Amino acid sequence: MPETGPSRLVGILGGMGPGATVDFYDKLVRATPAARDQDHLRVVIWADPTVPDRQHALLAGGEDPTPWLAAGVSALVGCGAEILVVPCNAIHAYLPAVVERTGVEFISIIDVTVAAVGKANSTGRVGLLATDGALTAGFYQAALAAAGLEPVLPSTASQQRLMRLVHDVKAGRTGPSQRSELASLLSELEGSGVWTVIAACTEISVLLAHLDVPQQVVDPAQVLALETVRRARR
Amino acid sequence: MPETGPSRLVGILGGMGPGATVDFYDKLVRATPAARDQDHLRVVIWADPTVPDRQHALLAGGEDPTPWLAAGVSALVGCGAEILVVPCNAIHAYLPAVVERTGVEFISIIDVTVAAVGKANSTGRVGLLATDGALTAGFYQAALAAAGLEPVLPSTASQQRLMRLVHDVKAGRTGPSQRSELASLLSELEGSGVWTVIAACTEISVLLAHLDVPQQVVDPAQVLALETVRRARR
Repeated sequence: MPETGPSRLVGILGGMGPGATVDFYDKLVRATPAARDQDHLRVVIWADPTVPDRQHALLAGGEDPTPWLAAGVSALVGCGAEILVVPCNAIHAYLPAVVERTGVEFISIIDVTVAAVGKANSTGRVGLLATDGALTAGFYQAALAAAGLEPVLPSTASQQRLMRLVHDVKAGRTGPSQRSELASLLSELEGSGVWTVIAACTEISVLLAHLDVPQQVVDPAQVLALETVRRARR
Repeated sequence: MPETGPSRLVGILGGMGPGATVDFYDKLVRATPAARDQDHLRVVIWADPTVPDRQHALLAGGEDPTPWLAAGVSALVGCGAEILVVPCNAIHAYLPAVVERTGVEFISIIDVTVAAVGKANSTGRVGLLATDGALTAGFYQAALAAAGLEPVLPSTASQQRLMRLVHDVKAGRTGPSQRSELASLLSELEGSGVWTVIAACTEISVLLAHLDVPQQVVDPAQVLALETVRRARR
C-alpha cells in the first residue's frame, strides 16, 4: 500500500443530484492551490442517485432516505475517509443522525454557509432560495435565527417557479433561460430590500456562474469547497 | 441496506489529473438519458492525485504507480464496483496487469477510442495527440496498427508545445489561450492531410468544448462516457 498522501482523505456523499456533485467536485478542484496533480486533495466520492426523493420524503411522508445515506457513509468510511461532506442542502435534514454514529469529522454545508453569511451581512436580513422540503424541515431558518439573522423567503408564486427551476437542472437544463429565471427570482428579493441571498440548493449553485445580479449571492457549494480544502490540508 | 439500483455500480479510478476526472464525470452525467436524479448511474470515484507522475515513470524510470493503482482499484471493488473505468490515457500502460487480477469488467479508454475511430475514419491516417509517456509506451500506436490505421504524430517542436499545454491544464489554466494553442497544433496536422485526430490525453479533452476546428477530433473521455452508460444500464 502506498503511503498516505499530504492531505486527509475527503469523502463526498454525492448523487443528490449528480450534476450538483460534478459542480461541487469542480469547485473543490479549482479551490485547491495546486501547480501539479500531486498537490490536489485525495478524494473518494459515493454517488448513488437512487436515494429516494428528498422532497417527497420531507413533504409527503415518502420513503426515508436514511438507509441509502447510511450505506454511502459506510462505503466512504470503509475507504478511509477522514472528513465527510455532502453537496446537497435538503438532505442535511437527515444527515446528523447518520454521521454522528461514524465518529468521522463532518462539515455541514448549513453551518459553514450561515457562518460565511454572518461575517458578510450588515442588514440582518438574508434571502433564502431553498427547496420546499428544506424550508419545511426548517434547518436553515433555525441556523440563521441562531446567528441573529432573519430569513426572507420568496413569495408563494416565486417559490413554485424556484421548484420548477430545480427540476430543470436535475433534468440537465442549465442554459440561458434557467439563468434568466434565477436572475428574475433574485430581482424580486432585491425589490424587498434583500441584498444578501443564500442559493441554498446545490442545483441552484450550478446556475450561478456568469450570473449578473447586483446582490451578494452566497453559494453554499463554493463555501463548502473552500472549507473542505482548508480542513483537509491542515 | 437499500436494494441495488437500476444500473450496475460504476467504479471510476480518477485523480490523474483531478480536472480530467471532473470533466469525465461531467460527460458521464450528461451522456445519461435522465429526467430525474434516480435515472442516473450509481458511481463511486476514487481520486488520489498523489499517484506518482506517469510521465516520469514511463520516460525516466520514476516511481512505479502500480501500488497506487492497486490501492484505488481495491477501494472501488471493496465498494462493490461492477465496472471499472479510468479517465487517463497514459496510465493505461500500467492498468491491464492491475485490473486483470480483480475479475471486474474493465472498459479500456484505448480500446473504445480506437474502435470509434475505426468506424468513422476513411483515409486510414489518424492524428495522435498524446503525452510523451503514452507515445513511448506505444499502446495507442499498437492498437491503431492492429485496427489497420496509421498513427500520425506532431513534429518534435509541436510535441513539446503539447506537453506544455498538458501541464497548463493540470495547473488549472484552461482559458482561450490554451484552446488557441490546441487549435494551432490541430492546424499543423491538418496541413499534413490528417482529418481525424485522437485527443489522447484527458487534459486535452478538457479543452475540446467550443473548439472551432475543421477536423474530426475524437475525445476518448466522451467515447468512454458513452460506452460506460451503455454497459452500466445493460
